[in-house]
Amino acid sequence: MGDSSFGKDFCITIFGESHGSAIGTVVDGCSAGLRLSTDDFQAELERRIPTDPTLTSTRRERDEVQILSGVFEGYTTGAPVAMLTWNRDVRSQDYEELRFLTRPGHADYPMRLKYGGFNDFRGGGIASGRLTVPLIMAGTIAKKLLRLVGINVFAHTIQIHTVKMERKLSLEATRQNAYTNSVRCADAETAEKMREAILKARSQGDSVGGIVECIAENVPPGIGDPFFDGLDADLAKIIFSIPAVKGFEVGLGFGSSAIQGSENNDQYAVQEGKIVTLTNNAGGILGGLSNGMPIIVRAAFKPPSSIAKEQKTVNLKEMEGTTVQVTGRHDPCVVPKAVPVVEATVAIVLADHCLRSGKIPRVIGKKEIV
Amino acid sequence: MGDSSFGKDFCITIFGESHGSAIGTVVDGCSAGLRLSTDDFQAELERRIPTDPTLTSTRRERDEVQILSGVFEGYTTGAPVAMLTWNRDVRSQDYEELRFLTRPGHADYPMRLKYGGFNDFRGGGIASGRLTVPLIMAGTIAKKLLRLVGINVFAHTIQIHTVKMERKLSLEATRQNAYTNSVRCADAETAEKMREAILKARSQGDSVGGIVECIAENVPPGIGDPFFDGLDADLAKIIFSIPAVKGFEVGLGFGSSAIQGSENNDQYAVQEGKIVTLTNNAGGILGGLSNGMPIIVRAAFKPPSSIAKEQKTVNLKEMEGTTVQVTGRHDPCVVPKAVPVVEATVAIVLADHCLRSGKIPRVIGKKEIV
Amino acid sequence: MGDSSFGKDFCITIFGESHGSAIGTVVDGCSAGLRLSTDDFQAELERRIPTDPTLTSTRRERDEVQILSGVFEGYTTGAPVAMLTWNRDVRSQDYEELRFLTRPGHADYPMRLKYGGFNDFRGGGIASGRLTVPLIMAGTIAKKLLRLVGINVFAHTIQIHTVKMERKLSLEATRQNAYTNSVRCADAETAEKMREAILKARSQGDSVGGIVECIAENVPPGIGDPFFDGLDADLAKIIFSIPAVKGFEVGLGFGSSAIQGSENNDQYAVQEGKIVTLTNNAGGILGGLSNGMPIIVRAAFKPPSSIAKEQKTVNLKEMEGTTVQVTGRHDPCVVPKAVPVVEATVAIVLADHCLRSGKIPRVIGKKEIV
Amino acid sequence: MGDSSFGKDFCITIFGESHGSAIGTVVDGCSAGLRLSTDDFQAELERRIPTDPTLTSTRRERDEVQILSGVFEGYTTGAPVAMLTWNRDVRSQDYEELRFLTRPGHADYPMRLKYGGFNDFRGGGIASGRLTVPLIMAGTIAKKLLRLVGINVFAHTIQIHTVKMERKLSLEATRQNAYTNSVRCADAETAEKMREAILKARSQGDSVGGIVECIAENVPPGIGDPFFDGLDADLAKIIFSIPAVKGFEVGLGFGSSAIQGSENNDQYAVQEGKIVTLTNNAGGILGGLSNGMPIIVRAAFKPPSSIAKEQKTVNLKEMEGTTVQVTGRHDPCVVPKAVPVVEATVAIVLADHCLRSGKIPRVIGKKEIV
Repeated sequence: MGDSSFGKDFCITIFGESHGSAIGTVVDGCSAGLRLSTDDFQAELERRIPTDPTLTSTRRERDEVQILSGVFEGYTTGAPVAMLTWNRDVRSQDYEELRFLTRPGHADYPMRLKYGGFNDFRGGGIASGRLTVPLIMAGTIAKKLLRLVGINVFAHTIQIHTVKMERKLSLEATRQNAYTNSVRCADAETAEKMREAILKARSQGDSVGGIVECIAENVPPGIGDPFFDGLDADLAKIIFSIPAVKGFEVGLGFGSSAIQGSENNDQYAVQEGKIVTLTNNAGGILGGLSNGMPIIVRAAFKPPSSIAKEQKTVNLKEMEGTTVQVTGRHDPCVVPKAVPVVEATVAIVLADHCLRSGKIPRVIGKKEIV
Repeated sequence: MGDSSFGKDFCITIFGESHGSAIGTVVDGCSAGLRLSTDDFQAELERRIPTDPTLTSTRRERDEVQILSGVFEGYTTGAPVAMLTWNRDVRSQDYEELRFLTRPGHADYPMRLKYGGFNDFRGGGIASGRLTVPLIMAGTIAKKLLRLVGINVFAHTIQIHTVKMERKLSLEATRQNAYTNSVRCADAETAEKMREAILKARSQGDSVGGIVECIAENVPPGIGDPFFDGLDADLAKIIFSIPAVKGFEVGLGFGSSAIQGSENNDQYAVQEGKIVTLTNNAGGILGGLSNGMPIIVRAAFKPPSSIAKEQKTVNLKEMEGTTVQVTGRHDPCVVPKAVPVVEATVAIVLADHCLRSGKIPRVIGKKEIV
Repeated sequence: MGDSSFGKDFCITIFGESHGSAIGTVVDGCSAGLRLSTDDFQAELERRIPTDPTLTSTRRERDEVQILSGVFEGYTTGAPVAMLTWNRDVRSQDYEELRFLTRPGHADYPMRLKYGGFNDFRGGGIASGRLTVPLIMAGTIAKKLLRLVGINVFAHTIQIHTVKMERKLSLEATRQNAYTNSVRCADAETAEKMREAILKARSQGDSVGGIVECIAENVPPGIGDPFFDGLDADLAKIIFSIPAVKGFEVGLGFGSSAIQGSENNDQYAVQEGKIVTLTNNAGGILGGLSNGMPIIVRAAFKPPSSIAKEQKTVNLKEMEGTTVQVTGRHDPCVVPKAVPVVEATVAIVLADHCLRSGKIPRVIGKKEIV
Repeated sequence: MGDSSFGKDFCITIFGESHGSAIGTVVDGCSAGLRLSTDDFQAELERRIPTDPTLTSTRRERDEVQILSGVFEGYTTGAPVAMLTWNRDVRSQDYEELRFLTRPGHADYPMRLKYGGFNDFRGGGIASGRLTVPLIMAGTIAKKLLRLVGINVFAHTIQIHTVKMERKLSLEATRQNAYTNSVRCADAETAEKMREAILKARSQGDSVGGIVECIAENVPPGIGDPFFDGLDADLAKIIFSIPAVKGFEVGLGFGSSAIQGSENNDQYAVQEGKIVTLTNNAGGILGGLSNGMPIIVRAAFKPPSSIAKEQKTVNLKEMEGTTVQVTGRHDPCVVPKAVPVVEATVAIVLADHCLRSGKIPRVIGKKEIV
């Protein structure tokens, strides 16, 4: 399997570079018989672009997804679904002066070494947030498959810089409110503080990070594999593929390291004939398998590396120290944009495992004979 | 690829169950020409068992590794290296009463659902810390390969329950001191407090978790792949395969979410003709690739689920609430045992990527013609 | 890995359907630094279309390859190379009446069952010779990589219907003459008889098959893996993925079953300091590994299933017997078109193994610093 | 995935060397709940050793299979089933003089180059017929899974040297008679001639090859994948992994290259409400998918390379021509032994695809609650 592929039964391959001609994905393994159109993708991709223009870079591409294969008469055929979007709003000249300057926090330097200088350095090439668009394309299909079996995946922002979401909302409220503001935080008051943190960083030519939480409701118990394809292991891998992620945890996560077993264990009970746990510190995953409780994971994003402030760097041609100011259009915070991306990646992993275990059928219904 | 396999070029397959007849691994892709004997494995496996008997369960197996294939006249042949150790000190009767009781925090319940009750429930079956022994076997080979190219991997305990390692030691000092005490903490004073935290939990019939940090020195820049096989992504996946892990982070990790880009970015300089960064908040990984600085990762372990305290649970046969006290021999804390396991998994990922990129040769030297 | 992917280090993913909007491939693992342009693909694709219009279907698409990613400033970047060609000359109405008729020899019936009727049945959908175009795209890159290390792959027609190539030409002569006529047979006289066999079948509304032989010169000894990724095993797999292939053999192949060991064994000698075999019955492969002699394989193609003659079939809607005459544009023989396809697939396998074993470097040279 | 692994859902990993301490396999992906004991394996392994001692080498190991994992209380657990058998009857001194002599027809020479001389050269090491024992182990499980869904796989000898099985028996008769003689040919008269051909070669210090045909009855239509995981492609790959195979074909195979489309196409009819074809030239596979007719494949085996006759070879230490006579115990013909091996490999591929498509369930029944 190539390095640009992920998944066993719902297998995605992504391609493209930040300033190349197109980016896209091939989704191999999607069930036949799923209703699918370009509208499905547009709706998801628009959730990626906050309505508040002060929070995001001025590069604003309305990505239009083109479906190249795998859909016929409105339904998936079972063959690979290839999709792409053309890169349009590209201003590559912004990068010419960075040809030999390695931007702190970016992958410029190791990329250049790995690829002997042949990598497309403009906008980071393949190591770019732009590559999250194909993840959302694939995630759109995954989410549609999951919804067929009642699984719902949603994410929201729980921290921007030092502003934390402290209020404890119900899953219901979180799901409904996350997208009502531009930072994707379910609590309006906290959202406003988060927005201010972003604007403050922006005004300083600086940037901030944050934490995204993602929840999957209604995952039946027993999905996943104990070794090495645990749900948590697969989620960790794909989420660490999102640029800027530096941490990942499930349930209480790092917090569980500081409490005792008797506090951390989720005790069992029978409620309405179903087995439930009285707490959900495990975040819905035990031994790599779903236990029927909501799956809860968190991803930590570092502040974007592209900042206007002057930084020390090295000119790789001269091998001499110098300084760099990263100009061009850059987001002061990627967290709001990352919320639907985290959703997409979680959905991809769940779709993969639900297909493998037979919870999602390989063929959805039967084509009506016209 | 089966669920029990990991890696592309250094590919390991593990097998076995906690109370089955044997556990082992097949390592496929090890270079030919590596000097290898059972002594190599014994040395590593003994690092897993702290010398302090008060800290660990009384199940004390001196695992003797048997090499079944892939080694000839003292050197690896390039063919798969299969290894096993027999399970000896097994007291399966301890588990008979747990046949229908699902232990809180364990994978008993989802395992039973996934496998229709056919899973070997004794000791958790495949979902058991016992399966970390094959990881150490494979890790032993990986570490030997890495040492050939100057890469050194070591881990240490930085937190047990609420006791944190606060002193900032050099990498040198950390490497040398970690194994001088039974909790594998490089600072003797902190180690003693950690030991007390474990003993206190034990005396209460309870358990505690903690955090292990692992460092890889001398990894050349440019190792890894941008999507989806980043070093961080692959490390996250394998570390989440270790039982009881609930969180993983690289470099500053979750901490980087709360600082600004200008603080978080590692600025570059030239030192002695080499490119270095002035800080290492990235933990040696940018865009999935090594940047030449030490790789630093952390894994959060939850407290062991097996505790003597009474807990609410469900009898799965009767589907009725009841209580359970997990008797038998259980560790009050797995962190000390987990230190060499984390080391092993990090080594496995690095060996895999170093083979792929040609940094480790497929054949080590040439067999002397006797 | 998805079903539409092949290869470990040089990994290709193909997508598209005969009458969909586009077909293409993503090549993941191509070394960085390979000079590559659309011209390379055009040249290869044109070899697929015999100049003699009487031999091929009247569907004549001049496929123009678009490179979407992985090439920057004229060289491959090391990132996935995605390519496509749009389907233009499509006359889908030809197929409407076949919606419920399963054409003998085609995959219509099992495809319909597998995909619940959602498959794109026009032109066979994914089960179409049209999908060999992406194979040629990927093969073009593979051949360029192989040429860098002196490996040359070429194929020719050795049988059409009952007309066999009996003359024994040198490899040199074969390579030079194969493309001098429209059937791709290196002997002009035999080629003319083959052409007549095709025209005769065509005039009868019938079709003929044949055999393609492919040779790879200069493959260094020791490439391949003993189990399960032998060169022969991988070649067999990819060649059986070409539509219409029903047989595959290496060296003497089926012929070696009828002779004795003493005749079949290739004895060794030293010639000009190099180890050679005095015969090459093994076709250059022993135990899955190249032995340094030319690799010789053969693929048997059945006659095309689409024929104008009336055949018995079943209407799947009514589940009743009926007859079908396959109209539309169809080749009376696919063998001439298949010659470059076999070449491409052999090149893909060899590039994959040469990358794995380090014979082809991951980076070709170093980008000149302008 | 390692080179020593095969399959996606029913994934086998094999290990061992001809004269190492043990050989075995790990089967990952076997459904939970299959009744399985060592007796199942013994029965299959005994079919590998013809009762007629004049036909086989005098190395006669009664392989006793040990199950290491994955079976609990008589049923598979869903965890990997690891199995091994110890190599006992090993006379390695026979090989010492071959350390630097490369035997014609064997993989000695390329193996030595690939592994820098570190490979275990005794008996061919991993490139040995001995490695077919793990294939039979895995095949035993595959066949049991297939039988649950009514699929029956069997093989028989259709050619030894120039003696061909000409009589056309029914599938029924073939299945019942194949194992009634030591060459595994379903026709007693032909079998006797085949036996004579083997004995004649043996008496001359020579060897003969032959052809094995394998049939799978009752495979439901629609199993397989169009690209690249066609049933035929996967069968070709695994069968070419069996040592000594040089050719593979499906249905008419090479024969279909010499007839016309109207003769080769299998026309459809409805019989007893089921769709059938009136002929089965396709051998049950169209476009990589089963079409519901019996799957029929053939594998061509070359004569064994180890012969007593003097042959030219090279001393690799001195790089000088010399001669070799391969002494030791060697089979004059591997075809009879290969019959159950071909069966096993076909069963492995079918089990893999039946699991993937849901035709074989992941859990067989539900464990009775005692």
